Amino acid sequence: MRLHDSAKQIIRSGALGHLVTSGPDGAPQVTCVWVAVDGADLLTAHLNPRLRKLENVRRNPRVAISFEGTEIRPPGLREYIVVHGQATIEEGGAPELLQELAHVYLGPDVPFPPMDDPPPGVRMRINVDSVGGIGPWAE
Amino acid sequence: MRLHDSAKQIIRSGALGHLVTSGPDGAPQVTCVWVAVDGADLLTAHLNPRLRKLENVRRNPRVAISFEGTEIRPPGLREYIVVHGQATIEEGGAPELLQELAHVYLGPDVPFPPMDDPPPGVRMRINVDSVGGIGPWAE
Repeated sequence: MRLHDSAKQIIRSGALGHLVTSGPDGAPQVTCVWVAVDGADLLTAHLNPRLRKLENVRRNPRVAISFEGTEIRPPGLREYIVVHGQATIEEGGAPELLQELAHVYLGPDVPFPPMDDPPPGVRMRINVDSVGGIGPWAE
Repeated sequence: MRLHDSAKQIIRSGALGHLVTSGPDGAPQVTCVWVAVDGADLLTAHLNPRLRKLENVRRNPRVAISFEGTEIRPPGLREYIVVHGQATIEEGGAPELLQELAHVYLGPDVPFPPMDDPPPGVRMRINVDSVGGIGPWAE
């Protein structure tokens, strides 16, 4: 399923992604992450390749991620986006993507990550299966 | 586990809850909801007792719910709260709780729900198992 331009715009404006992965026992794990739009996919970046959410995805690639919009929709709930997808882990490229995302989430001049010689890390690529929530992307 | 006062304050200030329940096949379902703090528990209200998230909880009471804070924490991520808990469904009381929550989420004078004679609905009570995320409540 295609991510609508209006949804891409909200994500690109710096909305925080609430990322849900599934633990070994099926329990949901939730963390908030910076998210990039890459064509039809979503991308996140992680310096530490052993984070729990990454191990979860290696075991079970099914993820969900939600973002808040800014408009209030009738009868009164703020619009939000829920993306369901399949995630894969790509080696390397984390510092470069984090720097790009820091410009969106922290400010145009903020250097990130705040260290010399950061490790290459990994990126999580989310291939979109469905888009829901409340808003014009849920048609 | 106890919900710290700082976390309660964020929820009571009108932060939207990203509620995760588990579908019949274990897939996470995510919706954004208004949330009240009731003593040590969290409460949500639903006029329609047959919503998918409610059916999910009747089958599997394990839920997660996340909220964004407003402060930026070093090295640069916005603080957020992740609550894991066990949910139970209580009959009735939805219109009254929705009215209370509308005063927080929509404004002090907004009547809600916007209908005459709303159905009694249900409330979801979340008993907190653990509190995580980034912020002073994750100690």
